Amino acid sequence: MCIDFLLTRRSIRKFEKKDIPDSVVKKILDIARYAPSARNRQPWIFIVVKDPEAREKLSNIHKWAYPLREAPVAIVVACNNVESRVSYQVDCANATMYIMLAAHALGLGTVWIQALRNPREIREITGLPEQYTPVAIIALGYPAEKPEPKPRKPLDEIAFRERYGEKLS
Amino acid sequence: MCIDFLLTRRSIRKFEKKDIPDSVVKKILDIARYAPSARNRQPWIFIVVKDPEAREKLSNIHKWAYPLREAPVAIVVACNNVESRVSYQVDCANATMYIMLAAHALGLGTVWIQALRNPREIREITGLPEQYTPVAIIALGYPAEKPEPKPRKPLDEIAFRERYGEKLS
Repeated sequence: MCIDFLLTRRSIRKFEKKDIPDSVVKKILDIARYAPSARNRQPWIFIVVKDPEAREKLSNIHKWAYPLREAPVAIVVACNNVESRVSYQVDCANATMYIMLAAHALGLGTVWIQALRNPREIREITGLPEQYTPVAIIALGYPAEKPEPKPRKPLDEIAFRERYGEKLS
Repeated sequence: MCIDFLLTRRSIRKFEKKDIPDSVVKKILDIARYAPSARNRQPWIFIVVKDPEAREKLSNIHKWAYPLREAPVAIVVACNNVESRVSYQVDCANATMYIMLAAHALGLGTVWIQALRNPREIREITGLPEQYTPVAIIALGYPAEKPEPKPRKPLDEIAFRERYGEKLS
């Protein structure tokens, strides 16, 4: 049942020292193409980074990017900010979420590395042109940890009926 | 297999005239809590709008919002732009994607209605305070259509190896 599938996805930050076959990476990106986007513009591109030097550089863009060092594959998800001026961030987020879930379906682990604060460094490392804004970097690998789910806010605090402030229950 | 589950989600714009039990709406939002967010801040809130007058108003915010009129439920997904200043759009997109997939898992249909251009109107209709930015509105209902998948760009055009422009295959 695919509800459990949604609930059992975790952010994975420790990975086995094991390469991922190209065919598996391609399968994941192939599925990501089916994410929804505003007016079906699909303004996303994916850059698969396996080179250890490039991953090392990506892992240093900020202090939470360290999983990109150990993961065998980094996937930079970038969006065309000209083609999709208003919604490039959400379009790109959808493709990224599809990458994470496709990986989960195939037994791989991922973590979403924030990219929005570091466009300059990421453009330099990956050769991304100005019209593409890097929105996320996914660290991808075979999981070497089984983290418990992080605590979540109770539904009562975040869900309302008809208007803000009116409890759903 | 949950890969098919990802591939078979469609945007649904025609809905049966049939109400959705509160318990089902709550189940969907309960699952949405498990979407990933930057530093697990979960800056999202959900406003469930069933009132036909309010849905009529929401359906008029722009010309692609019409499915909110026919769908029995609209869910406004908004994000705290103070708590999550840089990543509120992508955090909110993740929760929205989880709503769409949870609905799909339960046999319901959804379409993502763009909200980013119309914060003022949506705040007025739902009483959302300034620190919450409406990022998406989901039209939710039992599907009354079975659309074919929309065309997707070929992987070769959008996927690169190591640097932008270097083909993956």
